[in-house]
Amino acid sequence: MPIDPARLWQRLMALAEIGARPDGGVDRQALTEGEIAAWRLLIGWAAGAGMEAATDAAGNLFLTLPGSDRTLPPLLAGSHVDTQPTGGRFDGAFGVLAALEVATTLAERGIVPARDVTIVAWMNEEGSRFAPGMMGSEAFSGGRSLVTLRAARDAEGTSVGEALDALHAAFPDLPRRPLGFLVGYYLEPHIEQGPLLELAGIPIGIVTGIQGKTTWEVAIEGEEGHAGTLAMAKRRDALAAFARMAAAMQAEVGSADPAVKFTIGRIEVQPNAPSVVPARIVFRIDLRHPDNAALAGFGRRLEALVAAHAAPCRAVAARLVDAPANAFDAGLRARIAAAASRLGHAAMPILSAAGHDARHLAPLCPAAMIFIPCRGGISHAPQEWAEPAHVAAGVAVLAEVVAGLV
Amino acid sequence: MPIDPARLWQRLMALAEIGARPDGGVDRQALTEGEIAAWRLLIGWAAGAGMEAATDAAGNLFLTLPGSDRTLPPLLAGSHVDTQPTGGRFDGAFGVLAALEVATTLAERGIVPARDVTIVAWMNEEGSRFAPGMMGSEAFSGGRSLVTLRAARDAEGTSVGEALDALHAAFPDLPRRPLGFLVGYYLEPHIEQGPLLELAGIPIGIVTGIQGKTTWEVAIEGEEGHAGTLAMAKRRDALAAFARMAAAMQAEVGSADPAVKFTIGRIEVQPNAPSVVPARIVFRIDLRHPDNAALAGFGRRLEALVAAHAAPCRAVAARLVDAPANAFDAGLRARIAAAASRLGHAAMPILSAAGHDARHLAPLCPAAMIFIPCRGGISHAPQEWAEPAHVAAGVAVLAEVVAGLV
Repeated sequence: MPIDPARLWQRLMALAEIGARPDGGVDRQALTEGEIAAWRLLIGWAAGAGMEAATDAAGNLFLTLPGSDRTLPPLLAGSHVDTQPTGGRFDGAFGVLAALEVATTLAERGIVPARDVTIVAWMNEEGSRFAPGMMGSEAFSGGRSLVTLRAARDAEGTSVGEALDALHAAFPDLPRRPLGFLVGYYLEPHIEQGPLLELAGIPIGIVTGIQGKTTWEVAIEGEEGHAGTLAMAKRRDALAAFARMAAAMQAEVGSADPAVKFTIGRIEVQPNAPSVVPARIVFRIDLRHPDNAALAGFGRRLEALVAAHAAPCRAVAARLVDAPANAFDAGLRARIAAAASRLGHAAMPILSAAGHDARHLAPLCPAAMIFIPCRGGISHAPQEWAEPAHVAAGVAVLAEVVAGLV
Repeated sequence: MPIDPARLWQRLMALAEIGARPDGGVDRQALTEGEIAAWRLLIGWAAGAGMEAATDAAGNLFLTLPGSDRTLPPLLAGSHVDTQPTGGRFDGAFGVLAALEVATTLAERGIVPARDVTIVAWMNEEGSRFAPGMMGSEAFSGGRSLVTLRAARDAEGTSVGEALDALHAAFPDLPRRPLGFLVGYYLEPHIEQGPLLELAGIPIGIVTGIQGKTTWEVAIEGEEGHAGTLAMAKRRDALAAFARMAAAMQAEVGSADPAVKFTIGRIEVQPNAPSVVPARIVFRIDLRHPDNAALAGFGRRLEALVAAHAAPCRAVAARLVDAPANAFDAGLRARIAAAASRLGHAAMPILSAAGHDARHLAPLCPAAMIFIPCRGGISHAPQEWAEPAHVAAGVAVLAEVVAGLV
């Protein structure tokens, strides 16, 4: 089914105007005025193709091209339109606009699909304004309750609940769908966010799965003291305990295995004064691995190291995210491979190192992802870039797969 | 010479009303409205005893009881009236008010000292609002230029220069003395800020010296990366380098010797996001030791550990403070011992673990400090407390020493 890659490219650039940064990047964080403006643009484009817009209690946006049998569970395709504060033009936007392009083409060609084709833009994939990310898809899948998600607050103290209510108030006429309706298939196109496709010179990645991820918040409780007067033997120095823990974790887990990824990205120290023995430290661990047994084993080791190195302080490690590795649907992966082959685009299997909303859809229905290369493997940065030819290849493969399913 | 400990106690409590915290502590940081109000109170009390007030370009306050020969260099006695944000009623205030009590008693008894007796309240001893501390005495001693000190800024962006100008504008009629005039003797009474006098049951500490102190700011430059996609082998993780450094420093320096004090109290991480490999870390090291050779040796070891553990990041350690240990004047220490003995107060020699303005006066003239106990060794906290009997003993010993010198 021939699609219009030029229109898709124009729409990518038009969407990037909303929240555009002077450095060429995009700052359009979840549930901001920018995201509301992006919704208006998407709803307008969809209406032009005869599609119906709707939302749900979690602030996900659905744009539906009606099928001939509306009792069948829809084919869902899309991604997200929120970005990091220093984000780019393609992460998320490519998936939503590629799916919209496919539905628009179906409508323009007068093709009525057997089942609804629904474009989705999930709420707060990035997790930069409100943590954790992938909120909309996780609420949709029932993984986390909406009550819990609504309580999360941004740095200014605004809650997800308040921001969601403001979003819905901006679209008073938009129908509400039930949270977590039945889905027939889920497809998510996305830029790779890694260098492998570009290095291989291959435009289509057939995503095998998403590596597993576990995150912790570790709190170390020590005791404040005067740096000049408190004897070392009497100290309960939270930062000294942190240094022992972190060094041991780097040595034992961070260097254990070429597939492991171990990061301590955030640390807060109290009182964080040059001449005061630190009383309290809270830090975050991000552990990823494609193999669930290895992920679990390294996770237990990290928790043991927290316990082993805490004394004379006390330390508690709380798991925030526990997302095992998943494998995408074999049937859909075969359809993606066949479509790429028919269209003459080279394709290769690839593991997703980053998390995606597709993780939460995979337990609900056959789900898969299509990757295209991004320059230098860079994402979450203003210089994020995808070549127009790769954008065109990705949307063509998506169109071919969708046509075979509806 | 009999003094009036009840008046001194009343003045301590009256001064503590300025910047009083609901928890019983005092928040009267350097060059604030609170310090200006404290100056008004002190100047008023001094004027009542016929003393002359003056300031200098560094914002130090001088209250002088004129001597019979005004060409002799004055006896200077005092401390500071600024506090930590969660400070107490005695740190600094005791020294200034004890000295004021002695001068007031001289005046009331009609004693004209041979030389000027000048009470001093040094600018910004605490270093909590503007770093580093002991600014006024260091500028007075010529250790740091006023131009440099005026450039330091607080968390709101106000510079020392701006705050100093505001202080001086609040006292337009106050004469200016030259910065760093000749001093005959310097005496500083202070609470111990440690537990030793209380544990020994001894009210008077004859301070032998102040332990040496070296501080560094260490900057580690790595490279930002995505926690989910960047392979461990390709990372330049500033926090991983920090953890290796800090753990090695704790093991090799922090535990090396019962007299060493090693603290990393402050650390700033960029971008400090849970899923981003840290690009840059800046942290502070505070090292103290009573022996200058040991201080220098441990300092060199710390710098070597920064270099040894930086790779694959780059790290630079810059010395901020390099204050060797000092010994106070033997003649003045003997006078303090003799005065305590005559008055029947037990006394013992004691090392000061904390820094004091007296450090900067010691190179200029015979200088000494008198310590009194503080409850539990606690200072820089609202529960800071000195017993009225110890306050009385401290001021009586000071009066006896001053009487012997003027």
